[in-house]
Amino acid sequence: MLREVTLEDIRPIAIGAGILGTGGGGNPYLGGLHLASVIREKGPQTLMDPFTLADEALVCVAGTIGAPTVSIEKLPEGTEMLRALRLLEQHTGRQFDAVAIAEIGGSNSMQPLIAGLQAGIPTVDSDSMGRAFPEIQMSSYLFGSDAKVAPYAMVDAADNAAVVPSAVSDLWGERIARNIAVSMGARAGLVACMMSGAQLKASGVHYTMSLAHHLGARAIEAQEQKSDVPQVAADVLDGEVIFRGKISDVNRRTAKGFARGHVRIDRFSPVSARGSKDDRLEIEFQNELLIVRINGEVVVTTPDLICIVTEEEGEPVTTELLRYGTRVAVIAAPAPAQLKSEVALEVVGPRAFGYDVEFCPLPGGVIGRRPAG
Amino acid sequence: MLREVTLEDIRPIAIGAGILGTGGGGNPYLGGLHLASVIREKGPQTLMDPFTLADEALVCVAGTIGAPTVSIEKLPEGTEMLRALRLLEQHTGRQFDAVAIAEIGGSNSMQPLIAGLQAGIPTVDSDSMGRAFPEIQMSSYLFGSDAKVAPYAMVDAADNAAVVPSAVSDLWGERIARNIAVSMGARAGLVACMMSGAQLKASGVHYTMSLAHHLGARAIEAQEQKSDVPQVAADVLDGEVIFRGKISDVNRRTAKGFARGHVRIDRFSPVSARGSKDDRLEIEFQNELLIVRINGEVVVTTPDLICIVTEEEGEPVTTELLRYGTRVAVIAAPAPAQLKSEVALEVVGPRAFGYDVEFCPLPGGVIGRRPAG
Repeated sequence: MLREVTLEDIRPIAIGAGILGTGGGGNPYLGGLHLASVIREKGPQTLMDPFTLADEALVCVAGTIGAPTVSIEKLPEGTEMLRALRLLEQHTGRQFDAVAIAEIGGSNSMQPLIAGLQAGIPTVDSDSMGRAFPEIQMSSYLFGSDAKVAPYAMVDAADNAAVVPSAVSDLWGERIARNIAVSMGARAGLVACMMSGAQLKASGVHYTMSLAHHLGARAIEAQEQKSDVPQVAADVLDGEVIFRGKISDVNRRTAKGFARGHVRIDRFSPVSARGSKDDRLEIEFQNELLIVRINGEVVVTTPDLICIVTEEEGEPVTTELLRYGTRVAVIAAPAPAQLKSEVALEVVGPRAFGYDVEFCPLPGGVIGRRPAG
Repeated sequence: MLREVTLEDIRPIAIGAGILGTGGGGNPYLGGLHLASVIREKGPQTLMDPFTLADEALVCVAGTIGAPTVSIEKLPEGTEMLRALRLLEQHTGRQFDAVAIAEIGGSNSMQPLIAGLQAGIPTVDSDSMGRAFPEIQMSSYLFGSDAKVAPYAMVDAADNAAVVPSAVSDLWGERIARNIAVSMGARAGLVACMMSGAQLKASGVHYTMSLAHHLGARAIEAQEQKSDVPQVAADVLDGEVIFRGKISDVNRRTAKGFARGHVRIDRFSPVSARGSKDDRLEIEFQNELLIVRINGEVVVTTPDLICIVTEEEGEPVTTELLRYGTRVAVIAAPAPAQLKSEVALEVVGPRAFGYDVEFCPLPGGVIGRRPAG
């Protein structure tokens, strides 16, 4: 289990969280560069076992809200989350004891390390998705406890700031935050979801920073040994490599603060010249990869994880970087148990995203389990 | 000069502020019903001569932000502005001494009376436009002093609230507020523009509530005497009736939180059967009426006032109620001096709205002058 995050841990976390990010969560390479600069200045960040957190401790989540397509062009000023955290403390008159992770995916796995280091408080080894999702209400901290998204604070790279003291519901909180993020140029630092240690322990998907690190370390090892990186990654996640092929079409648009679209992947060497029965895979995404169809038939559905990695190196490919011609492998892995309850599926199941299909769960799963050591 | 606002004053203010509203500011009839219910409960509202305000007094503006097209269908809960005012007081730790008027147009002329009554503080007989404009930064309190739009607070009819502690500029403050208003269903209560009595006195367009009341009273008198109401209204405003005719086309869409479009008016009995040279008038609007063309030639431009009233009764017609077949008169009147400086025209002149025409000022003007008595 990881106890602190040093410069050396950034690359494994970037790869692991990139894969766990299911295409979203923001670009992990850029997030890693930012984290490295803060660690160089302030030293390693303490990672806290969630079960060592006092029940009455006050925790928040910190991250970037916006469209990943924007975030690769509009770089952060660097202190957005710290300023949002201080603003929320000032507005509520309370002080945070630790920062938790909203989503373990991509850059947003690293933002809580940056925010914690800058604020001088530890980061909890726990997130609320065990992957990434596009919207705030899709957080197990929210649907798994009576914590609320509001009050929350948002700050952009310039001097724009906003506090939302209350929202009718977490969905309304998301709508307002999304529109504020759009006004802020589709990228802002967000500190939200004030909760107690007890609420976090009851609702979180735990030890996912340790899992991301382990997954990344195994992938790097496999890269060095020239072994099958996608297969190694799938094994770590108790999942499988369901497809290997070349991206033949990407339809992507940045709308309402999201990167939406679909990607088509054609299998290498089809069985017959006219194409075999299962030669075409399509994935729908809304920041994250949500639904896989093979030749039109749904085979994997949110909240189960759908991860695109490069075929040779097993490096994660986020949705904003999907492009024609890339040779990729598609990994499917079972979602953590916290996302599969009836309550959870109403918020993160296929219908929550507007897809008229049932959730067809993959068997097994390791995400959210306490690692050995 | 009006010293307090009673139930009897509501109808004249509704008509006067409806005309001054240049098509915007929200429906004055609905605003009047709301104000009447609050006066019935709490008594008349004190109207304060701006020059009796202490230099160090703390003043805010209060109003409704959103699309007038929405506001006629989505009625307020009734305490939006009071809740926003208290939220801003709580966030900043300061107390307001009085409420000023953002725009004297339409319903937004009455909102500061409602907010003041509910909060137990007087309303200042001063606004920042002498008319209505669609965006927050178009306020003389802002471009005429060093006051800023942020910090501000917004509250909707339900339990959604937001505070914007800082904005890069007033234009950024407007963008963020507009998007929050859209999230809140294109209608929200807004309390903004914290300023001192000294700032208000230096930058406001004064005595416009008294002017609205006087204008409305003269119009009602003319209605009773069956005289030419549009002409009487034009005379009060030192303007003229530039056109009388029938609305023959309305193009209106609610986009990005605004009611945008244009209206065409055809002159009664054209001089020849083929139409005379000046038989067609067109007005462009963005919540408010901004540019008049007669047969394609620009004749009146923002910030000068363009007011549509019914031809017979002289009742104001707001943009959301423009419809085919209505017989109307168009009044043009000179804007207050505060809107015609170089600095002001950058914010409220034709180019600020995207029209590639120069401001062609009408001569004279009375708006903002101290009334007799």
